[in-house]
Amino acid sequence: MAEATQRKRSEDGGAYGRLPQHPDYELTQVGPGTPCGELMRRYWQPVAVSADVVDRPQYVRILGEDLILFRDKKGRPGLLYPRCMHRGTTLFYGKVNEEGIACCYHGWLFDVEGRCLRQPCEPDGGKNLDVARQPWYPIEERYGVVFAYMGPPEKKPVLPRYDILEDVGLDEELRADMGAFGATGDNSLPVAPYSWLHMNDNVMDPFHVQVLHSTFSTVQFVPQFALMPKVEFFTTENGVCYSAKRKLDDGREYDRISSFLMPNVMCVPNPVDINQVKANRITWSLPVDDSHFTMVTVSRMPKGAPPLGGIRFRGKLWGEMTERERQDTPGDYEAQVGQGPISLHSEEHLATSDRGIIMQRRMLKAQIRVVADGGDPIGVTFDPGKALVTLRSGNFYNAPQRA
Amino acid sequence: MAEATQRKRSEDGGAYGRLPQHPDYELTQVGPGTPCGELMRRYWQPVAVSADVVDRPQYVRILGEDLILFRDKKGRPGLLYPRCMHRGTTLFYGKVNEEGIACCYHGWLFDVEGRCLRQPCEPDGGKNLDVARQPWYPIEERYGVVFAYMGPPEKKPVLPRYDILEDVGLDEELRADMGAFGATGDNSLPVAPYSWLHMNDNVMDPFHVQVLHSTFSTVQFVPQFALMPKVEFFTTENGVCYSAKRKLDDGREYDRISSFLMPNVMCVPNPVDINQVKANRITWSLPVDDSHFTMVTVSRMPKGAPPLGGIRFRGKLWGEMTERERQDTPGDYEAQVGQGPISLHSEEHLATSDRGIIMQRRMLKAQIRVVADGGDPIGVTFDPGKALVTLRSGNFYNAPQRA
Amino acid sequence: MAEATQRKRSEDGGAYGRLPQHPDYELTQVGPGTPCGELMRRYWQPVAVSADVVDRPQYVRILGEDLILFRDKKGRPGLLYPRCMHRGTTLFYGKVNEEGIACCYHGWLFDVEGRCLRQPCEPDGGKNLDVARQPWYPIEERYGVVFAYMGPPEKKPVLPRYDILEDVGLDEELRADMGAFGATGDNSLPVAPYSWLHMNDNVMDPFHVQVLHSTFSTVQFVPQFALMPKVEFFTTENGVCYSAKRKLDDGREYDRISSFLMPNVMCVPNPVDINQVKANRITWSLPVDDSHFTMVTVSRMPKGAPPLGGIRFRGKLWGEMTERERQDTPGDYEAQVGQGPISLHSEEHLATSDRGIIMQRRMLKAQIRVVADGGDPIGVTFDPGKALVTLRSGNFYNAPQRA
Repeated sequence: MAEATQRKRSEDGGAYGRLPQHPDYELTQVGPGTPCGELMRRYWQPVAVSADVVDRPQYVRILGEDLILFRDKKGRPGLLYPRCMHRGTTLFYGKVNEEGIACCYHGWLFDVEGRCLRQPCEPDGGKNLDVARQPWYPIEERYGVVFAYMGPPEKKPVLPRYDILEDVGLDEELRADMGAFGATGDNSLPVAPYSWLHMNDNVMDPFHVQVLHSTFSTVQFVPQFALMPKVEFFTTENGVCYSAKRKLDDGREYDRISSFLMPNVMCVPNPVDINQVKANRITWSLPVDDSHFTMVTVSRMPKGAPPLGGIRFRGKLWGEMTERERQDTPGDYEAQVGQGPISLHSEEHLATSDRGIIMQRRMLKAQIRVVADGGDPIGVTFDPGKALVTLRSGNFYNAPQRA
Repeated sequence: MAEATQRKRSEDGGAYGRLPQHPDYELTQVGPGTPCGELMRRYWQPVAVSADVVDRPQYVRILGEDLILFRDKKGRPGLLYPRCMHRGTTLFYGKVNEEGIACCYHGWLFDVEGRCLRQPCEPDGGKNLDVARQPWYPIEERYGVVFAYMGPPEKKPVLPRYDILEDVGLDEELRADMGAFGATGDNSLPVAPYSWLHMNDNVMDPFHVQVLHSTFSTVQFVPQFALMPKVEFFTTENGVCYSAKRKLDDGREYDRISSFLMPNVMCVPNPVDINQVKANRITWSLPVDDSHFTMVTVSRMPKGAPPLGGIRFRGKLWGEMTERERQDTPGDYEAQVGQGPISLHSEEHLATSDRGIIMQRRMLKAQIRVVADGGDPIGVTFDPGKALVTLRSGNFYNAPQRA
Repeated sequence: MAEATQRKRSEDGGAYGRLPQHPDYELTQVGPGTPCGELMRRYWQPVAVSADVVDRPQYVRILGEDLILFRDKKGRPGLLYPRCMHRGTTLFYGKVNEEGIACCYHGWLFDVEGRCLRQPCEPDGGKNLDVARQPWYPIEERYGVVFAYMGPPEKKPVLPRYDILEDVGLDEELRADMGAFGATGDNSLPVAPYSWLHMNDNVMDPFHVQVLHSTFSTVQFVPQFALMPKVEFFTTENGVCYSAKRKLDDGREYDRISSFLMPNVMCVPNPVDINQVKANRITWSLPVDDSHFTMVTVSRMPKGAPPLGGIRFRGKLWGEMTERERQDTPGDYEAQVGQGPISLHSEEHLATSDRGIIMQRRMLKAQIRVVADGGDPIGVTFDPGKALVTLRSGNFYNAPQRA
């Protein structure tokens, strides 16, 4: 058996005797203590839409950790390790009150930061309550989203602000959504069954738009995307951007700028309404665990605007399609789920069209090492005065050049 | 990665950097050769209700072993390893006759103690039939239950008798039931998806009754259980008991005595009719495997009494409830399944209310070591004259003390 | 724990303390690089019915490998490793054209032998296309079946011809079918959930026919099979055969000859129409992976003959039966699935009725070692002049002997 697996690729390029392949574990493992997991934990991550966090406990799974999320009756959200520190019954069956959450089994009561307030079955409601601190994570709410910080407490950064979501006018509103809509184009799938990296690799990849979303089967965004763009990639202080230029029929040059921000954030201009100049939304590709992810988006909309319709494939939303129909008109979901739950990066053949992805992955790996060596990764700040992030993304138009 | 997992608990009690947790394997592993498995195997275990054992073979799974159970046409029950000693076809597809069970493939015939009686495809019906002995376990029936002994043959003890199930009057009957009713309170779940130990930990825990079953959401037993009892625990010759005293409104002292018998038996007085003095039932928490268990109960009832109604949660049986309803009114099932398939005992914080559980677990571990060292555990006897077990459990009332 | 598992079988033949059992891995592991997998790969294996191979890509799973099968619009079939050599998206979502198949993500185009023809997102459609050769397997079509060769390219043998499928007359036709019909007797199960070896062990086993298929529950083939045959086994140049003789009521001797050909082929005479002299079909037991297999049959039939009805169990096809009905009238499927996903050969007790199976397994093991030592196994030839295989199988009748 050793010989077969160690043999080099057959000279005729056949499948016999290929070496076993493997993922890039450094970028795909997201659990506690893993390189990428420790990187992700240095940043605030969105864990829920604020409006969905109520006094009924719910499970969330993020970065490979199962947690309980609830809002006490004073309106304070809490994110706790689920197994009660008494004998391990899940706080999913707990009851929320003004002070926090009480376990169903013996009534041990914890506040939103896990402090044990009472042990009803103990004399005097319990002594040594400190010992029974329920493990917890700090939470902050902004933009209609609940953010959690799951990293080393002494390294907790300031929660960033994004310029495109600030100074919201009276005729505007911010909307927060959670689900795998960036993959399917609709609201039918809460969690996608594959690694966050498959989506993140899609962000700095303007070339697939001309094939998958335009010429391969159906136009999924706008006809202009059938033109193969000229692309420049450039690194920024906290990520990677691309500028994708297309010469339109009317002579204008359409310059589409899209952004990746460390470690898992994208700012992609509207792909359906390409007249919209500045990008109006930020999206996180949130790892649920090594082989699942979901997405959280905050969009700036006119007040009362109807919800975004989904992407349609020959008139149908993804959630309405059969497997055969998805085979006929694949979109991002098929391209990404088709890489498997975790891709086998050892067998990739990256080309010039992948240089944006190469830049992203290099940046991620470099910052993983910064964190492993005890440093602070880019995009993290402890100075509230430096919390504002400026986004470059948008659909820009340059007048035709006069001869 | 090593640093993150070995780091001590954060000073702020947060969830970052916690050590990995683990079960108490000594008490939760029940397969052949495991410490607790070898302890369990030293005692007769109930494997089925007698009335359910018929000439159609059925699968049973006990202590991590899959077995076939049937009754030959002479009325003798047999418990055999399922894979025919010829070429491994399961005796589930076998046919039962007067002599035993015949495998469907080549007709090899075995009696209820696994003796191979015939090999039809062999000349003269087979030679060396002894070599093909189908592995088997001895069985005895009593109280309407089929008991099996799965331990070392030379250590087979006498099948115990329980005083509360003896001398059944003409106007009484014994009823046997099997299923996870002690967890759900109804008959809807044959097997519970978690370790036997979660149920066993519930037996010597009178305190949770005041919370989970009374004040947390709904009264699931009787209103008197809303009073937190004063509890004394004491060891007995074969287990642990508690005496839980409550002062009632009418001045009487209600003393509820409940018993745990080695290794997995409980005798709990009626929790719904607390006027019933002596306990009328014995229940085994039968490990199916490491992460599943079921229960077998023998009850002494008046002849023709209607079946016990189940516990109702806001009028509904457990099997009728949605997950949301179970979240609203959790019972024993939720408290126990909420500990996971196998609890993580390393992160428990046992308190004074857990002293009964601590006594039980110490006793189990001590007897596990007795068995491992070649001795006989308590509760096991080889002397038929000593087979009778006296139970102490019941609902007792002491008149109010006169000043 | 060591003592319990190493102890010898109890003297009373009981189940306590049995040693752990295990499969014969040498014969059941079929993946790349395994002993049996490497043997299987030295022969052409049938992977699909030709009529089912169309321009829509489909998954096939053979010998533990997931592959994509399609027919380009010039009619050429291709069998490719599914993960595109660019970034791993499955070619299941690819689009087939005149030249081959294009991946949905970036349009990389591959022909039926995996040559990369174009990379649309690359300048000039890509350079170094050779580097991105999609792993592939050679295919040949014959008898209405698509055969694949998955072994070392330099050892690719000639695709065999079978005499009973040659020289098909104008009033005859060949029909190809795929599915687990040899196990269930009908067309309801595409893949059986157990090892190929359970079926292969069934071929050189004429004795079970008298029990399982005749006297155990119902007559599943013909009444004459209720007679226990006198059997001779003999090895041939490429396999093992048996001659099973039965004396019929009319004095004739019925001699049923059945063949096993290395490594997984059977030629079994019609079991339902036993007047049919020469066998008219060849069947492969095709390993899907270690614990699944399927079957491919080519039958020679009169043109326009109705399809074969399935085997009926008290009037019902297997696909129409409940589990209880299958327990009442088990057939080959129950006998084989009852051995588990992979049988535990270490606990078999083979008898005289198993000598055909013993001969088969010895031959398989001997040829596995020939291959491992660098030689060519029997039944493989590189000489087109030696491609023809002569089958012996059939239902033969000898007139009664005159005194």
